[in-house]
Amino acid sequence: MEEILTKLPFWDKLTKPEQDLVLSSAVIQKYDAGQMIHTCDKQCVGLVYVISGNVRLYLLSEEGREVTLFHVLAGDTCVISASCVMEQISFHNELSAAEKTEILIIPAAVFGRIIKDNIYVRCHMYEQTSKALSDSMWVIQQIIFKSIDSRVASFLLEESDRTGSDTLNITQETIATEINTAREVVARMLKRFATEGYIQNQRGKIIITDADALEDIAG
Amino acid sequence: MEEILTKLPFWDKLTKPEQDLVLSSAVIQKYDAGQMIHTCDKQCVGLVYVISGNVRLYLLSEEGREVTLFHVLAGDTCVISASCVMEQISFHNELSAAEKTEILIIPAAVFGRIIKDNIYVRCHMYEQTSKALSDSMWVIQQIIFKSIDSRVASFLLEESDRTGSDTLNITQETIATEINTAREVVARMLKRFATEGYIQNQRGKIIITDADALEDIAG
Repeated sequence: MEEILTKLPFWDKLTKPEQDLVLSSAVIQKYDAGQMIHTCDKQCVGLVYVISGNVRLYLLSEEGREVTLFHVLAGDTCVISASCVMEQISFHNELSAAEKTEILIIPAAVFGRIIKDNIYVRCHMYEQTSKALSDSMWVIQQIIFKSIDSRVASFLLEESDRTGSDTLNITQETIATEINTAREVVARMLKRFATEGYIQNQRGKIIITDADALEDIAG
Repeated sequence: MEEILTKLPFWDKLTKPEQDLVLSSAVIQKYDAGQMIHTCDKQCVGLVYVISGNVRLYLLSEEGREVTLFHVLAGDTCVISASCVMEQISFHNELSAAEKTEILIIPAAVFGRIIKDNIYVRCHMYEQTSKALSDSMWVIQQIIFKSIDSRVASFLLEESDRTGSDTLNITQETIATEINTAREVVARMLKRFATEGYIQNQRGKIIITDADALEDIAG
């Protein structure tokens, strides 16, 4: 446990009493693929540090549509799951294990006390929250406002049909020109597809690894 | 100018050299209703402090649909407009004056230097950004995912039709039950309608002041 705690990005910024408090209260939990870690209905879990595996944070619409905002990978922390102690976070979100996952949890009450007292940890957490939420806004813009996910997926599938191969020799610039957007937008969307396991994204080459998933997105 | 600067929420946390730097670089700008302050295409303006008036931050879809995320009112600051110096903010947004507005601007380069050096200001800014973006996520969830805006607007118009009056004697609980959501969600949406000038929101009473706007939202 102590070995894992020292990997926390703010561990060195904690006072000795704070470190002791975290050490005595943190717990390790295991989840199977697909299992819920945090939902908006339940009390919040606290700060999550991913030891191994992959945690997915998403929004859920009333019709049950899911929009994945981001993944938290091994070695990363997620504060959105501590939303009950950060009054700045007021939207509803769901957290589930995307694969077999082991996480360390600092309980919400303990974490709340630390960010209240320790400006370094507080600053770190708000910085991380700003980045996570800004990235989420980007995802929402591209997917909901512009359907860039569907346009990129359609293009990849058409290109695969045309060439008769799952390996596409194509640059991000070409895709961007074809679907009429910026290269940076295409780069981020391809990275997203790769994280989800739909494609492998290599230099000048894209390999489709889950055409069914791309077809779902293409709609 | 100095009198306005002392109202900045982080002014007391600045060192004397930082205060001098801000004092010598800040500018005051006036905008007419509807005038753009910041768009995603142009270089960013910097930190905005609203002296008088009302600044609107919104997302723009490719089809030209606007979704207002929040308003920045007199006495409030907005850091989203300094996104070029906060690498954590990467989504595209537009800022315009909702009415005749006077703002103080701390140029991006100066503001960037201060948040780099001063942990109090940095922390304050990330905290504010977290809150602003979380509120924005909430707006997006309610409007795009659940169409709560349209459901509340429809309900208010139907109620006005039914009673033949623009003044509705109705509680938030009743609206929440009727449209099948939580009272808190209705409260926040009514507050939003009131800020936009569509209704006046009084205790146990709602006065429709812009039925046309509500009809647009009801769709």
